[in-house]
Amino acid sequence: MKCKHVFAIALLSVGSMKLQAQQHRAHEQQMHTMASEVQQTNVRIAILLYPDVVLQDFAGPMEVFSKAKNLSQGKYTVFTVAKDLKPVRTENGLLKMTPDYTLENMPTADYLIIPGASMPVMHALVDDKVYLDFIKRWSKKNDGHLVTVCTGAYLVAPTGAFDGKKITTHYFVADDLAEQYPKATVVKDVRFVDEGNIITSSGVTSGIDVALYLVGKQSGEKMKAMIERAMQYTYHEEEKWPVAPNGMRYRSQ
Amino acid sequence: MKCKHVFAIALLSVGSMKLQAQQHRAHEQQMHTMASEVQQTNVRIAILLYPDVVLQDFAGPMEVFSKAKNLSQGKYTVFTVAKDLKPVRTENGLLKMTPDYTLENMPTADYLIIPGASMPVMHALVDDKVYLDFIKRWSKKNDGHLVTVCTGAYLVAPTGAFDGKKITTHYFVADDLAEQYPKATVVKDVRFVDEGNIITSSGVTSGIDVALYLVGKQSGEKMKAMIERAMQYTYHEEEKWPVAPNGMRYRSQ
Repeated sequence: MKCKHVFAIALLSVGSMKLQAQQHRAHEQQMHTMASEVQQTNVRIAILLYPDVVLQDFAGPMEVFSKAKNLSQGKYTVFTVAKDLKPVRTENGLLKMTPDYTLENMPTADYLIIPGASMPVMHALVDDKVYLDFIKRWSKKNDGHLVTVCTGAYLVAPTGAFDGKKITTHYFVADDLAEQYPKATVVKDVRFVDEGNIITSSGVTSGIDVALYLVGKQSGEKMKAMIERAMQYTYHEEEKWPVAPNGMRYRSQ
Repeated sequence: MKCKHVFAIALLSVGSMKLQAQQHRAHEQQMHTMASEVQQTNVRIAILLYPDVVLQDFAGPMEVFSKAKNLSQGKYTVFTVAKDLKPVRTENGLLKMTPDYTLENMPTADYLIIPGASMPVMHALVDDKVYLDFIKRWSKKNDGHLVTVCTGAYLVAPTGAFDGKKITTHYFVADDLAEQYPKATVVKDVRFVDEGNIITSSGVTSGIDVALYLVGKQSGEKMKAMIERAMQYTYHEEEKWPVAPNGMRYRSQ
């Protein structure tokens, strides 16, 4: 309970608490203890941006890792990467963003987050080759993890990285992904699947759950629970997926 | 059921469905019917950006309104506004963003979304005066709605716009907000409070719920339900808030 209390304070970056002196000393001590528990490793997270990317697909993970950065006193590093450094906008021409690094000059990362977009956008990314080459190169060079959110799975599947693995994706395209890539096994009614270096999550907001799960793995359940509370979000690993009426579903051409 | 089916397709922008001709005609007819139901009004949403803003606070609403834009064939307009057009980064120096408009030259909007940040950042924004002046000016000039997410409430409270209203905010600062602004009534264990032109939501991810609620009000429950499914998110209006251990809480100096 005490550690949770300390994190509740830290999360809101409160420098102006009217703490009793005794409480303050306890706070300091607990922060030190917690920091030593969680600061064993640095965790580096790269987030792939591209034109028409779905904002919530990567914003959820980015927020979770940002809170983890607060709580670990900076041991989490989060940055964005893209084909080049030109500004890109999220789906529907909305948020205008400038990436931190190109695919060529990005630092090493432990996790590469690949968010999704509408299916025409995903097909165009696959056709571009630059992205598939990058993902293949990254997988070979790094001992890191590929984390797809939603239809981001369509950008990894053609590289063969899913072959022999259990994976998941957005409920509406799940049957299509299974048919297009029969060497992978699509799992339904879950928020994410962890297959070691390959981690896949289901639709849009499932990116929050998979990121919380990864923070739990890296830094323990206490930090994960504090981030859930800070975001006022209820973590869940399973979810009965919606069913498209009349058996409708997406099919790649 | 049929309308839901149509929207499931539209949400993923599927141009390559192997639809039977009959299904395709039914789809077209249903899209037309639905479009005529929801296209009665244009809805314009402005999102306030500033340095160190919390990404998830505005990303949730922006995603919901972006999906509404898809489903209404463009009747939703979403843009960002800031003090000036210089790039700003989200909390912890993460996502680098360029605003669309300044506070001076922004178009009229029906909803002004005010996301939150850590408390030191919120206090600095209040001290800046530019923001309070903008919110006062905006409130007077527009017949629009102010929508706060999380600690964004602290940027509206000093303008007096909350006086006599029910409001909510992030659970950890709720008692402090109530003490600082006793003319407002802070409501707990809810995701948001709608008081007409003043709409407030609780912590971080509650921005998704309040935006879904507003889409439901503007465009009906069918569209709202389809966006929930597209985001694989379970809408909720009430939530038993976490309790900080040992009675700890935030206090403004």
